[in-house]
Amino acid sequence: LYVCAVFVNGFACKDPKTALVEDFFFSGLHMAGNTSNKQGSAVTAVNVAQIAGLNTLGISLARVDYAPYGQNPPHIHPRATEILTVLEGSLYVGFITSNPENKLFSKVLNKGDVFVFPQGLIHFQFNYGTNKAIAIAALSSKNPGVITIANTVFGSNPSISGDILAKAFQVDKKMVDHIHAQFSEYAT
Amino acid sequence: LYVCAVFVNGFACKDPKTALVEDFFFSGLHMAGNTSNKQGSAVTAVNVAQIAGLNTLGISLARVDYAPYGQNPPHIHPRATEILTVLEGSLYVGFITSNPENKLFSKVLNKGDVFVFPQGLIHFQFNYGTNKAIAIAALSSKNPGVITIANTVFGSNPSISGDILAKAFQVDKKMVDHIHAQFSEYAT
Amino acid sequence: LYVCAVFVNGFACKDPKTALVEDFFFSGLHMAGNTSNKQGSAVTAVNVAQIAGLNTLGISLARVDYAPYGQNPPHIHPRATEILTVLEGSLYVGFITSNPENKLFSKVLNKGDVFVFPQGLIHFQFNYGTNKAIAIAALSSKNPGVITIANTVFGSNPSISGDILAKAFQVDKKMVDHIHAQFSEYAT
Amino acid sequence: LYVCAVFVNGFACKDPKTALVEDFFFSGLHMAGNTSNKQGSAVTAVNVAQIAGLNTLGISLARVDYAPYGQNPPHIHPRATEILTVLEGSLYVGFITSNPENKLFSKVLNKGDVFVFPQGLIHFQFNYGTNKAIAIAALSSKNPGVITIANTVFGSNPSISGDILAKAFQVDKKMVDHIHAQFSEYAT
Amino acid sequence: LYVCAVFVNGFACKDPKTALVEDFFFSGLHMAGNTSNKQGSAVTAVNVAQIAGLNTLGISLARVDYAPYGQNPPHIHPRATEILTVLEGSLYVGFITSNPENKLFSKVLNKGDVFVFPQGLIHFQFNYGTNKAIAIAALSSKNPGVITIANTVFGSNPSISGDILAKAFQVDKKMVDHIHAQFSEYAT
Amino acid sequence: LYVCAVFVNGFACKDPKTALVEDFFFSGLHMAGNTSNKQGSAVTAVNVAQIAGLNTLGISLARVDYAPYGQNPPHIHPRATEILTVLEGSLYVGFITSNPENKLFSKVLNKGDVFVFPQGLIHFQFNYGTNKAIAIAALSSKNPGVITIANTVFGSNPSISGDILAKAFQVDKKMVDHIHAQFSEYAT
Repeated sequence: LYVCAVFVNGFACKDPKTALVEDFFFSGLHMAGNTSNKQGSAVTAVNVAQIAGLNTLGISLARVDYAPYGQNPPHIHPRATEILTVLEGSLYVGFITSNPENKLFSKVLNKGDVFVFPQGLIHFQFNYGTNKAIAIAALSSKNPGVITIANTVFGSNPSISGDILAKAFQVDKKMVDHIHAQFSEYAT
Repeated sequence: LYVCAVFVNGFACKDPKTALVEDFFFSGLHMAGNTSNKQGSAVTAVNVAQIAGLNTLGISLARVDYAPYGQNPPHIHPRATEILTVLEGSLYVGFITSNPENKLFSKVLNKGDVFVFPQGLIHFQFNYGTNKAIAIAALSSKNPGVITIANTVFGSNPSISGDILAKAFQVDKKMVDHIHAQFSEYAT
Repeated sequence: LYVCAVFVNGFACKDPKTALVEDFFFSGLHMAGNTSNKQGSAVTAVNVAQIAGLNTLGISLARVDYAPYGQNPPHIHPRATEILTVLEGSLYVGFITSNPENKLFSKVLNKGDVFVFPQGLIHFQFNYGTNKAIAIAALSSKNPGVITIANTVFGSNPSISGDILAKAFQVDKKMVDHIHAQFSEYAT
Repeated sequence: LYVCAVFVNGFACKDPKTALVEDFFFSGLHMAGNTSNKQGSAVTAVNVAQIAGLNTLGISLARVDYAPYGQNPPHIHPRATEILTVLEGSLYVGFITSNPENKLFSKVLNKGDVFVFPQGLIHFQFNYGTNKAIAIAALSSKNPGVITIANTVFGSNPSISGDILAKAFQVDKKMVDHIHAQFSEYAT
Repeated sequence: LYVCAVFVNGFACKDPKTALVEDFFFSGLHMAGNTSNKQGSAVTAVNVAQIAGLNTLGISLARVDYAPYGQNPPHIHPRATEILTVLEGSLYVGFITSNPENKLFSKVLNKGDVFVFPQGLIHFQFNYGTNKAIAIAALSSKNPGVITIANTVFGSNPSISGDILAKAFQVDKKMVDHIHAQFSEYAT
Repeated sequence: LYVCAVFVNGFACKDPKTALVEDFFFSGLHMAGNTSNKQGSAVTAVNVAQIAGLNTLGISLARVDYAPYGQNPPHIHPRATEILTVLEGSLYVGFITSNPENKLFSKVLNKGDVFVFPQGLIHFQFNYGTNKAIAIAALSSKNPGVITIANTVFGSNPSISGDILAKAFQVDKKMVDHIHAQFSEYAT
């Protein structure tokens, strides 16, 4: 149960007289996330779950770490636009527009480059180099949400029927079963 | 280039004295869409592209037709919540919550049932029966957008790199090439 | 006391881990409402009062049934635009723009036609035919509200002073008393 | 054709370098409106039509003058809440809640009293005294709109069918014709 | 702890059946505030703290009294645009645009004049005459907030470091100490 | 004259078929701004003026560089909340709540710390150390605006009257003239 936050900048749910400076603070964004996983990336989120004072204020941050050849795989934020800047390394990034064009806008980003991923569109970042990469991303919601496409479609709990996915992705059901198995770690 | 619409309910871009009743009207939602396609479904959209008077008013409609065993495959609306009611037939429908739960909420809907798909979440409808099905959907935007997951990920123009998709979906690159080929019709 | 709803798509008031698929579901929109009343119409609403999961999501549905010569009399939704489609029969519909033009935009709708009633404007639907009619309406609020003009003005509880209404409608007070009596069923 | 306004507080449509102090100014709210009309009241509006700089800023003002026994008859603002304060005289004011309660909240206001009329609800002010009254009202929209119930329902252009209104107000059609005639001044 | 208010116009936190007319009412705006203070002005605010029914409705009022040569010193409303009208006397008013122009828009207002102060911009009113002045202001928030620049910068609790303020205002630290002392009444 | 931007994520003003990847891109945030100025700091902004594709998307970025003992002096963003993270060095930061408390919330931030400055509140960052410092800030508006308090109050163009400022800051007019002179570089 989320107990909403502080009052300092408008009517919220807590007596402003009891708000503390810690309600606006988070520590640790200088530390690399653990990228020892299948995608080779890690997201450290700083949103209203970490900083209660963000309640009603419409913004949050995240740090993304990428191992060499690591990627933040295709995903969407259902409630936010993202703006990202590269602190270290290089990234190949892109987003795809909605139907019917499904046009890929992609670009190689180097240190100091900034890129925008508009609200709700599928996007990704790929570290194609031999060194690690680091990015800082800002999102236009206190609680943007993340939907990683492959995990959500093939690793939901319970699973989406194989018949539906086979037809959606135009593959046979055996292939769907194979992909489902890769994401079984996410299921209960 | 979108030329925005009428003035009747607030300041927009056209002299309200020249607004016509046709600016608030659309005809033809009683006609079935053509479901002779791979997914066996058809969406007839009625949004600001069809009714200029919807500009600034935050709502639109759609009719969805489903052939037997047809489906409206997993997709998202980047800017809208959807509420759907079944006019004819039965549908197995669902949506999946965001990370980390990726919980599938699913249900069989019969005639007269109503279901909500919250903004930006992946959802689908599947006609598991031997008869056609029909639904009416309303969306909380004049221009909700549609992102069909498989088409967008595997049929974008140009294609997303096979390396990225192979790692994202945990399959080998040959399989990605195979799926890409299924969606080549969407690419230029 | 409204206890707000589920968490699935953003911070609301209930632990998302306890959300149920029933929180997004309603059953019965295929059943005709009872039109045996003075206006010859019935509205079956499906909003946040029926589907708790609509909380914060900005949309709702309604089914409207019309007996022959029945009507959904002039009314407004104080917090929503409406988009309506005719499932069966024919309707004469209209809305009136605000001061000083007070222009009536009206049209005969047949099966499959769609019409928009912009937020807060007075509008009506009249079944001028000898058969029943059915429409589905979507509204751009989880809780659009309905203000039926005649009932609200002449059937409020307690009554608005007859002097005020006589002058407003430019009739004598006896006539106001007469109309008040017609709506006494609505008063306590 | 509305040409939108100035840039000072955010992206609008005009070069901020050409904005003038006059774009934020209006003169004359100290002058009484002419209350020599059937309702015995006059509204002097100061919204985006008078002050271009209000564009996108969500607020406007109005002065209302009331002759003895004059009234601002039942009306709604489709896009705004109103907050009113009495500068001179006394007013009996009220608003009615939406269906199904249609509860009248009313009160006598004296000099210095403040009252709120929530968005989209029918409300009125009546000067029951023998002296003139003056009020200042603020509205939560640059372009709130006004729908005077009686004028809009019985004085629209063209007229709403007498059959519809007779049934809506539960009177015979002759009475509707009579009322229509009172508002013929508003029709073309 | 703010307990939110009434339900009449949308889902809020209190059973609408228990809402009272007093929840929409405030009394006393005809009475002059006490201007016997250093700035020679007094603001009487009427917002959601005074009228619980304003909750969610996006508007509030205030009366401002000015002694001869009194002023409402430079301040901002962090969450609202202000529109002000002069009831009595004359005022020299102004606002300054944001960086880099910092352009002063100023004007002398007489009785009945109206002026707009866009959201978040620094603004002031000065009564340069020998008579008192009175204004009514409306603000586009139920809880607009007030930040009086000098009091906030030099009278915060605890104080901002003198080094920071000396550099910001390009004065020596002794001067900052002097100004701090003037505002010590505001500190604990 | 601002010519608004691209269409990719909703109806804007330019044909989406002509949108380019450059409309979502900016380069150079890795380069330090020039801190050789009186305050010893430099802000490099990346908002809709630099990235046209941010139009309607509600977010922007900035890099802030601080020389040793440099500061980003007390300022406000009239249309945005800010969330900041320290990339290098240490900063003493704070914001002050609105009247009547004017409470200072302050904290020393080290590398990796994150802090929130709520919308419209006065805030500052001071590099109290002997090394340079760097921060990345995200803001909840495509066009947040910046109002540096001292520059705006004492360096506006034309100047605010010395009488007004002397009374506001409780200093004599000679002191105001002195401060005005420090900011004459900003005036025309």
